[in-house]
Amino acid sequence: MGEIGIYHGNIVFSKTEKELAEYRNGYIVVERGVVEGIYERVPDRFCGVPVRDFDSGVMIPAFSDLHTHAPQYPQRGVKTDALLKEWLEKYTFPLEGRFSDPEFADAVYDAFIGDMIRRGTMHVVTFGTIHEQATGMLIEKLEKKGIDAYVGKVNMDENGPEYLCERKEDSLSVTERFLEKYCANRRAKPILTPRFAPTCSGELLTGLGKLAKKYDVGMQTHLVESLWEKKETLRLFPDCSCDTEVYEKAGLFGHGPLVGAHFIFPSEEDIRLLNRYSGYAVQCPEATVNVIAGIMPTALLSERGVKLGLGSDVAAGQSLGIFSQAAKSVQLSKIKSFYEPENKVVSFAQAFFMATKQGGSLFGKTGSLEKGYAFDALVIDGLSDEFAPLSPVETVERFCYAGSADNILARFLRGCEIG
Amino acid sequence: MGEIGIYHGNIVFSKTEKELAEYRNGYIVVERGVVEGIYERVPDRFCGVPVRDFDSGVMIPAFSDLHTHAPQYPQRGVKTDALLKEWLEKYTFPLEGRFSDPEFADAVYDAFIGDMIRRGTMHVVTFGTIHEQATGMLIEKLEKKGIDAYVGKVNMDENGPEYLCERKEDSLSVTERFLEKYCANRRAKPILTPRFAPTCSGELLTGLGKLAKKYDVGMQTHLVESLWEKKETLRLFPDCSCDTEVYEKAGLFGHGPLVGAHFIFPSEEDIRLLNRYSGYAVQCPEATVNVIAGIMPTALLSERGVKLGLGSDVAAGQSLGIFSQAAKSVQLSKIKSFYEPENKVVSFAQAFFMATKQGGSLFGKTGSLEKGYAFDALVIDGLSDEFAPLSPVETVERFCYAGSADNILARFLRGCEIG
Repeated sequence: MGEIGIYHGNIVFSKTEKELAEYRNGYIVVERGVVEGIYERVPDRFCGVPVRDFDSGVMIPAFSDLHTHAPQYPQRGVKTDALLKEWLEKYTFPLEGRFSDPEFADAVYDAFIGDMIRRGTMHVVTFGTIHEQATGMLIEKLEKKGIDAYVGKVNMDENGPEYLCERKEDSLSVTERFLEKYCANRRAKPILTPRFAPTCSGELLTGLGKLAKKYDVGMQTHLVESLWEKKETLRLFPDCSCDTEVYEKAGLFGHGPLVGAHFIFPSEEDIRLLNRYSGYAVQCPEATVNVIAGIMPTALLSERGVKLGLGSDVAAGQSLGIFSQAAKSVQLSKIKSFYEPENKVVSFAQAFFMATKQGGSLFGKTGSLEKGYAFDALVIDGLSDEFAPLSPVETVERFCYAGSADNILARFLRGCEIG
Repeated sequence: MGEIGIYHGNIVFSKTEKELAEYRNGYIVVERGVVEGIYERVPDRFCGVPVRDFDSGVMIPAFSDLHTHAPQYPQRGVKTDALLKEWLEKYTFPLEGRFSDPEFADAVYDAFIGDMIRRGTMHVVTFGTIHEQATGMLIEKLEKKGIDAYVGKVNMDENGPEYLCERKEDSLSVTERFLEKYCANRRAKPILTPRFAPTCSGELLTGLGKLAKKYDVGMQTHLVESLWEKKETLRLFPDCSCDTEVYEKAGLFGHGPLVGAHFIFPSEEDIRLLNRYSGYAVQCPEATVNVIAGIMPTALLSERGVKLGLGSDVAAGQSLGIFSQAAKSVQLSKIKSFYEPENKVVSFAQAFFMATKQGGSLFGKTGSLEKGYAFDALVIDGLSDEFAPLSPVETVERFCYAGSADNILARFLRGCEIG
């Protein structure tokens, strides 16, 4: 019958952006790491297979983090008084500069991956730094762990500090070596990563566009993340009508996943272009309230059919926990709706959908526990009070709002328990 | 020499709203539960006294929660999609109704107090319910634990559900019995608690004003917490120029602590009146983003000399951790400053000041580790990375932004280790 696992307990996952599926005392059968089905009792054909019982625990899909900066991990939850410009120039750029030291990178990236898994995230899209060796270590560590990931060696050749600015030719040649070396990876794949338009010359972007086509690889960047960035980009690229067009014109779209972080101030044209290439817009709630001013019009983008995910955006965000970002996405939508009433409030069901099934779709069949999805799953517990027991869905809600990594009792990656 | 404790480690507390004091490898001497002094080495006069070593740990003052609802504890982090009106009528009022059952109250209040202490809060101002017996259990449990507290039996005789609306005479007589029974408490003291103007008749408020004078007891309520409440109050009390004046006219001010929760939409007159009676305005960041629309103008109120504290406001807020409310206070000030630029951003130092020294001043000499303050303290650790060690102040910052109760290694209440 092949390699089969059977797990008993409560089960919650997103059916649609509006609806959470809830099973009490269900049995989930996993075959070769993929969900075979959910049953009220174990089907006869599986009799004899031992059942792992999670009792009151709730099985949920593992989370997907669609935008973060692994090298900024040491800065999480500190330097929080600084706003974007000072935060970048005084703290974040100097920290990234330290990744010319492989020993430092090795220690940071081990800690980053360990913390990410501990918090239940098993799929990630992350920036590295401009450094070839350090970013190579990051992608190799993720591949070795079997984590679905897209990892980018950062490109920037303008308007950054000297120690982080590359010569255009070097930036392109190093990036090509990085693609050649890792494009055959099974799990952790390379992705083109121009930091953002203000730090990239048109020639650099066009060069990256050629690599995108040659290696059929996607791209990530920061898209309309702030009013300053939106204005500055149009000043530097006067022939473009919006931020997103800068990358399309450079030939960076249509060759793999397209990930736009923040997408807080999109124009109609930004939305149209992102949708045309089935791109993902990534909300990073903690980053928004720490260093990025403004709140993504999540409900509006959802209505417009934009694919949405959540990102921890460490270290602009202070924690790698995507589960808590889901709660914060709902909260920010309430604040935005207060100040800009044309923006609807996002439901918890929708935020959880972004954190799991919709964000996970970037990596394939992940982010749900429906038949055919990878059994990348968490078991959460310890959230209910005896005097006021919670339903499985309420358990998930409290986990996202007020839980911690300690509420995760078990973690599964394609059917194997890890962490 | 009396009962003396000496503790070695790092020490951080608020000097002023602008400045955090930081000591590395200091010795803090505690005499009869009160800080005697902080030293670089142990003074000769204390030689022979054993030193408790917290090594890399950071000693900080315990937190003060100036607004919460102990009976709503079972609802933390669930029903989060509901906004204020539905949240109250469909979930919160029915939950409070259950406190006619002393067994339920007993279980909830034990869990509430345990969780509060676990998260490092040792001073609290809390609503009970309208129920005499249940609220009596809450104040007795807090007194027994030695927690500095103000506990209110809720008064409401209008515009609430039948099962929570009292007859005015009963509300007053029960409240007077509550005051008589507990006003001699050493630690957990009674406080008058009209729910808010829309649910109290003028006669009830005037009756409470007489009790305030007779028993020299203070009051707490929800003040200008929403645009609806502000408007509704002026409709119901047309002879008052602002929400705050309703309670002043009823004679409720000037007899003890004055605690106004939320204070999000104060008029000039609200601010003037609160200051005249040295009242506290309590920001509840989580509640604000969950069910209460709007953000307190914290920086502006601080400039106007208003005394500020933080509140968990469970279950509108989802967690009893005041340390995380400090981070959220900074974050909300950034959002408010984005939408209303005349509002300045609050620094982490100021938010920590609100969470400890300023909020703690409501209870006397608590909330600091300066000479003469009660040694109500926490030891936090496990927040630093070997590859990027944090300063003591940064450790506190990361704790508030990304830490959990598990980072609290030890808790002291007036010099005795608890919890």
